[in-house]
Amino acid sequence: MTADRQTFVTHLECSMTGERYEADELHGLSRVGRPLLVRYDLDAVKAALPKATLEARQTDLWRWRELLPVRHTGNIVSLGEIETPLVPIPKSSGSANVLVKDEGRLPTGSFKARGLVMAVAMAKELGVTKIAMPTNGNAGAALAAYATRCGIETIVLAPQETPEVNIREIAAQGARVYRVNGQIDDCGAIVGRGAAEGRWFDFSTLKEPYRIEGKKTMGLELAAQFGWKLPDAIFYPTGGGTGLIGMWKAFDELEKLGWIGSERPRMYAIQASGCAPIVRAFEAGEEHAERWEDAATVAAGIRVPKAVGDFLILRAVRESGGKALGVGDPAILKAVDDCAKKDGLLLCPEGGATLAAYREALRTGEVDEEERVVLFNCATGLKYPMPEANAAVDRFAEIDLGAL
Amino acid sequence: MTADRQTFVTHLECSMTGERYEADELHGLSRVGRPLLVRYDLDAVKAALPKATLEARQTDLWRWRELLPVRHTGNIVSLGEIETPLVPIPKSSGSANVLVKDEGRLPTGSFKARGLVMAVAMAKELGVTKIAMPTNGNAGAALAAYATRCGIETIVLAPQETPEVNIREIAAQGARVYRVNGQIDDCGAIVGRGAAEGRWFDFSTLKEPYRIEGKKTMGLELAAQFGWKLPDAIFYPTGGGTGLIGMWKAFDELEKLGWIGSERPRMYAIQASGCAPIVRAFEAGEEHAERWEDAATVAAGIRVPKAVGDFLILRAVRESGGKALGVGDPAILKAVDDCAKKDGLLLCPEGGATLAAYREALRTGEVDEEERVVLFNCATGLKYPMPEANAAVDRFAEIDLGAL
Repeated sequence: MTADRQTFVTHLECSMTGERYEADELHGLSRVGRPLLVRYDLDAVKAALPKATLEARQTDLWRWRELLPVRHTGNIVSLGEIETPLVPIPKSSGSANVLVKDEGRLPTGSFKARGLVMAVAMAKELGVTKIAMPTNGNAGAALAAYATRCGIETIVLAPQETPEVNIREIAAQGARVYRVNGQIDDCGAIVGRGAAEGRWFDFSTLKEPYRIEGKKTMGLELAAQFGWKLPDAIFYPTGGGTGLIGMWKAFDELEKLGWIGSERPRMYAIQASGCAPIVRAFEAGEEHAERWEDAATVAAGIRVPKAVGDFLILRAVRESGGKALGVGDPAILKAVDDCAKKDGLLLCPEGGATLAAYREALRTGEVDEEERVVLFNCATGLKYPMPEANAAVDRFAEIDLGAL
Repeated sequence: MTADRQTFVTHLECSMTGERYEADELHGLSRVGRPLLVRYDLDAVKAALPKATLEARQTDLWRWRELLPVRHTGNIVSLGEIETPLVPIPKSSGSANVLVKDEGRLPTGSFKARGLVMAVAMAKELGVTKIAMPTNGNAGAALAAYATRCGIETIVLAPQETPEVNIREIAAQGARVYRVNGQIDDCGAIVGRGAAEGRWFDFSTLKEPYRIEGKKTMGLELAAQFGWKLPDAIFYPTGGGTGLIGMWKAFDELEKLGWIGSERPRMYAIQASGCAPIVRAFEAGEEHAERWEDAATVAAGIRVPKAVGDFLILRAVRESGGKALGVGDPAILKAVDDCAKKDGLLLCPEGGATLAAYREALRTGEVDEEERVVLFNCATGLKYPMPEANAAVDRFAEIDLGAL
């Protein structure tokens, strides 16, 4: 990573129309208002990168550099994007074949680091000096950390109900952060207005093309960790859906490199019952999802009433033979509690949603316990309120040891 | 890790007298009340483990298994103990050669996972069914997670002023936790009393022999990450000092394997000015450290008035040509703030202490900026109170974009 290197990006294209856009220019959404996808010369990657070369590298996000968009290594920004571990949770899941991909180990404690490290590096490469973004918390923290690290000015807008710990983390890492009296798409509207006026660059989910390339590394990593034979099913907590879309893209690219076959995991998009636009659209057979009104769930990271990449999420779920599934807040909280108390792993509520959905899917026969399943725990459980402990204060001299 | 394997532990020995103790039996402190050290047949390790074999393995804590005490792979307990990354912090440190080893990426968000994963695995191997431990927070969380995972009952005692987030995390992960009206050594006294009465096994720092073996992996990892040429200096936040003692032991074992030479980093034991027994003993030329009365610092993890391994810490620091250094709370908080605001990396207060000490050492000429220095950030900054953010709540319809 110390020298400039051959790159393989050929162009960008509209995810809806296929219209072509030049690489190496600043882009937002396509002309029809849809996400742009980065395309690579995969034949050239195949020639340049033998699988053994990849496997000999340090197992961090940047080992995949030939499949990533950054052209100049000097623009790489990093806080140590390690490969996240797969942790079995046999007791709380009821299956020895369920693995949690623990994304809370990434910088700033969430999988948002994957998308933002890439988007910020590309913003640096393309000369952006001021960024604004709406966030439910974790994306803002990741943006703040990486943008601060390379000297880009950042403004973050969060819904009023965003937990204080997230607001403080964003501010501590050098961004200016504001609470907004509305949902995340209301925050997004402000960001869009300012971007239209030329005040800043809009970093909303999927509105710049590179977060998806960073999130794609979840799929690349899974393939490598599973020895190039993908799991049977993936349960993914779905708000904006960048990661699900990114993994789906990663699998296609890996197949074109000849590193995996044509088999795909069933992709399960997991939402909270209190904000389930993708589930509703999936069940109705729609290609797009209507905005979900009065969104409410403990799992703030998937409290996204309207996703600009809705059709890409629904397409991946359907092509894979998966489903979009909703789970209620009580089941989410119960799953978080069970996983910590039985398997010693503290999930975030969104991760809890995937476990709750898996348990329900096991009950209904949608999955069976022999299947190899990956649940995404998208952030460290430490950022979220935990139930009050039963901790008593005792004067040590007076403690009755027999009662402990 | 799926089958039983050849092991290399020969015996344990008293760190003070060298008296020999049998392996495969439950031990606490030695007969003279000092920590026991695990000894290996390193010639046999050398024959069994070519360096290339080690380097080809997945880079987690268990790659070092020939240098670890667990005999039966079925006793290994794991939540994904990844190799922690080294993150440069050029702006806040003032040197391009300073790397933060970010231990907050480990399970339960702190380096305590290293020690406790090993101690719990050994407790399982040796048939322990009930454990008690004093904690300032992070050790209790790690113990709870691993013990829960393998069905061992756990009682954790924490000083009254332990932050609520730590107490809740410990409880969430299945331990019974009590606040005690005293310091950590007061908690330790209760644990010791119960252990003497046969109520539980005492897991206090260095009172069982295996936490040090887990912490030792910090030194093993550093050696591998630095290409088997150790850094010039290590700044280590020092409470009980297990990690510093462990790294020092690791370097000796690596030299006996022929993987590193006789050079050692200068070891700097960093304490808070409000609780600096090791610093006081170092400066006075003492071999042991008196208890520090009225200990007080924002860096709770190093608020340890009396360390049972004091002489081992002081010995390593002196042999290495390092020092024990104290830093005040204002410098600690300033370092945490600077690192987040300038380098995008949120340290814990104890990690902040190492940065504060480094900056002072740079100023006094104790280190120079060309030297390769590692600072240990022992836990994720997310577990600690962050300064209040300046976040305003704005009705989105009324926001003045020009003012953002």
